[in-house]
Amino acid sequence: MLYAFLASWERIWPDLQIFRYITFRASLAAISAFLICVILGPRIIRLLSSRGVHEDVGRSDSPALNRLHAGKKHTPTMGGLIFLLAMFGGVFLWGRLDNPYVLLVLGVSTALGAVGFVDDFIKLTSKDKPGLRARTKLAWQVLVGTAAGLVLFSVLEVRLPDPPAADRGAPVTSRDQGPPVLPVASSDLAGEPRYSIRDDSDLGTSVFFPVFRRVRVPLGILFIGLVALVVVASSNAVNLTDGLDGLACGSLILVSGTFAIVAYVVGRTDFAGYLRLPYVPGAGELSVLCSAMVGAGMGFLWHNCHPASVFLGDTGALPLGGAIGLVAVILKQEFLLLIAGGIFVVEAASVILQVASFRLRGKRVFRIAPLHHHFQFLGWPESKITVRFWIVGAILALISLVTLKVR
Amino acid sequence: MLYAFLASWERIWPDLQIFRYITFRASLAAISAFLICVILGPRIIRLLSSRGVHEDVGRSDSPALNRLHAGKKHTPTMGGLIFLLAMFGGVFLWGRLDNPYVLLVLGVSTALGAVGFVDDFIKLTSKDKPGLRARTKLAWQVLVGTAAGLVLFSVLEVRLPDPPAADRGAPVTSRDQGPPVLPVASSDLAGEPRYSIRDDSDLGTSVFFPVFRRVRVPLGILFIGLVALVVVASSNAVNLTDGLDGLACGSLILVSGTFAIVAYVVGRTDFAGYLRLPYVPGAGELSVLCSAMVGAGMGFLWHNCHPASVFLGDTGALPLGGAIGLVAVILKQEFLLLIAGGIFVVEAASVILQVASFRLRGKRVFRIAPLHHHFQFLGWPESKITVRFWIVGAILALISLVTLKVR
Repeated sequence: MLYAFLASWERIWPDLQIFRYITFRASLAAISAFLICVILGPRIIRLLSSRGVHEDVGRSDSPALNRLHAGKKHTPTMGGLIFLLAMFGGVFLWGRLDNPYVLLVLGVSTALGAVGFVDDFIKLTSKDKPGLRARTKLAWQVLVGTAAGLVLFSVLEVRLPDPPAADRGAPVTSRDQGPPVLPVASSDLAGEPRYSIRDDSDLGTSVFFPVFRRVRVPLGILFIGLVALVVVASSNAVNLTDGLDGLACGSLILVSGTFAIVAYVVGRTDFAGYLRLPYVPGAGELSVLCSAMVGAGMGFLWHNCHPASVFLGDTGALPLGGAIGLVAVILKQEFLLLIAGGIFVVEAASVILQVASFRLRGKRVFRIAPLHHHFQFLGWPESKITVRFWIVGAILALISLVTLKVR
Repeated sequence: MLYAFLASWERIWPDLQIFRYITFRASLAAISAFLICVILGPRIIRLLSSRGVHEDVGRSDSPALNRLHAGKKHTPTMGGLIFLLAMFGGVFLWGRLDNPYVLLVLGVSTALGAVGFVDDFIKLTSKDKPGLRARTKLAWQVLVGTAAGLVLFSVLEVRLPDPPAADRGAPVTSRDQGPPVLPVASSDLAGEPRYSIRDDSDLGTSVFFPVFRRVRVPLGILFIGLVALVVVASSNAVNLTDGLDGLACGSLILVSGTFAIVAYVVGRTDFAGYLRLPYVPGAGELSVLCSAMVGAGMGFLWHNCHPASVFLGDTGALPLGGAIGLVAVILKQEFLLLIAGGIFVVEAASVILQVASFRLRGKRVFRIAPLHHHFQFLGWPESKITVRFWIVGAILALISLVTLKVR
């Protein structure tokens, strides 16, 4: 909103043009979201606490785990409300609300947040129900994911920018061209791309691969299913990861930070062309959204770090996971999400493996799933598991960015 | 070293040219350094442990603090050896050892590491001496800093690249120029800059300011003093910050990550010109060094996170702080260090304030200095203080990068 306001004053005070820059607005969105979390957080936490919004941590199937987590009995949950409030605040202040991708991600977050809220609410209010039935929750998630797929199927526009004149085989020197100019691409400044680019109408519904830049699988109508799958899987994976103080939140910061960079790159023809990535006009605006998520994440971690004063709850984990999945699909970087969000992937895989192995072989693979609890049983202190998972997450984020260059 | 090896095979296998890219080598340096720390760390920790290399944490002046840290009595120190080993390993593998700035930073790190080692060694071996006398330690640090200043005074070469054709007042569209080309500048590919740039011989010894891009103070011979001051101050500030598990290490990761980006930008005429920053030919190679520091830091944090299995010790804090100070001076971004390294600044300032206030007014400002212990006395859990300091450090790093754009 501030964007529109400031843009209208630009004629009078040209310096305001700096607000056209995505990088600048993204940074402000992060800082605003952080401050909202840090300042409003304690009030909301007190409110939740006074209403008795506590997760019943002593209710898991494992008595040993219940003992390990006995100290967390009085920590309020539903903290996702703070996280989402701050993230939405950052986007509303500094994002462009006329961008369809931004609106779609906010819409999906709201819908999944509602599902998570109902789930948390049932857990809290009825002593014998462990939340929504798994089947019901999944059905709602699939519905939201499919709706997002339908929208994207009709609005997502992807192009293949021409690679730069300089091919990697023959590195160009800029001698002939005078001092090289880093073009201020129009996508950085808002508005349409102004030069013609090769265009295929089925690019929007295709899957692209990392490293192998020539491989592309057009999905057609099946693309809707892919969107639903990624959104639902990502949503649930984050929810499964949310089991130790700060674990899911810290990992979310790393993934959304990665996608803040990727969105910026994929939303500029010049950078996308240089790295030979599919170019998604308008996607740069998602960089502001992802940055707001980074800022909100850091602000939430302020309260959520060990020993946590508040938990995310399904109210936070479901929408945030869904949002990051949707961003990956819009940017045509589903595989990048598998790498950068490797922590979430491994956590979800550990649960699937454990269940499958127990059903098929009658044996467990891990002491307990998800994976982070396994390490607790091995005797690692909780804060150490969390920081080590963050470190692995940071390395994976770095590797995922390297795959952008190795094409 | 691998760089030189792979470069020689390029004619046979042109794909190896990817190793010319600083970003690619920087990523590999980070990953290698991380792996060195994680793999070799435990052995070195066991070795230190078996030799009885424990900091005498019960020896501080504050009995209350000694009680708080009683659990740390058996944690080995001198872990800086692991950190430095990994960082040097990453640079040796993927950096260019013919770059004077890289050699200078490695040299200064070695010298300050030796000072820290002697300090730690005296602490360990003699029961009644608290390490080197403050005055002796400072004298050695100043000597190293001055030597670095002398070298830089003669080798540091800085240029002012022409700003891009597009002035901010009139954003250019690339319509007339065809698809914009992101030039592969020669500085990214090794070797000299190949185009002429405005050159003033006193730029190397000038101080530049953030935001106010037209302000420049030529220091002349006093530049040597500036280098010494920044190196010594940064070295000691990191050492003061090193008082909670993972605190200094995590903050170092954030600062060196910031400077890995800044070094890349400042080492390319095109980016430096776009952002109107002083351009330092060859400084891009420091990006590899800073990335190795990031990777080594993450690997060290693996062992150093709460509850810590090893401490940095002066062996680590002095050289790492000095290295980051020296990098900031070479990149002409001393003020950026004050922002990005705000945690170190505030920690050092808290000690200075406390001592000054006690001497002048006979009153204390904080319950205890450095600042992190003050929060311990306020009842914050150690892991929470550390993560919150990291979060503030991350926000400051972000703000420091924004100041590069706001010029």
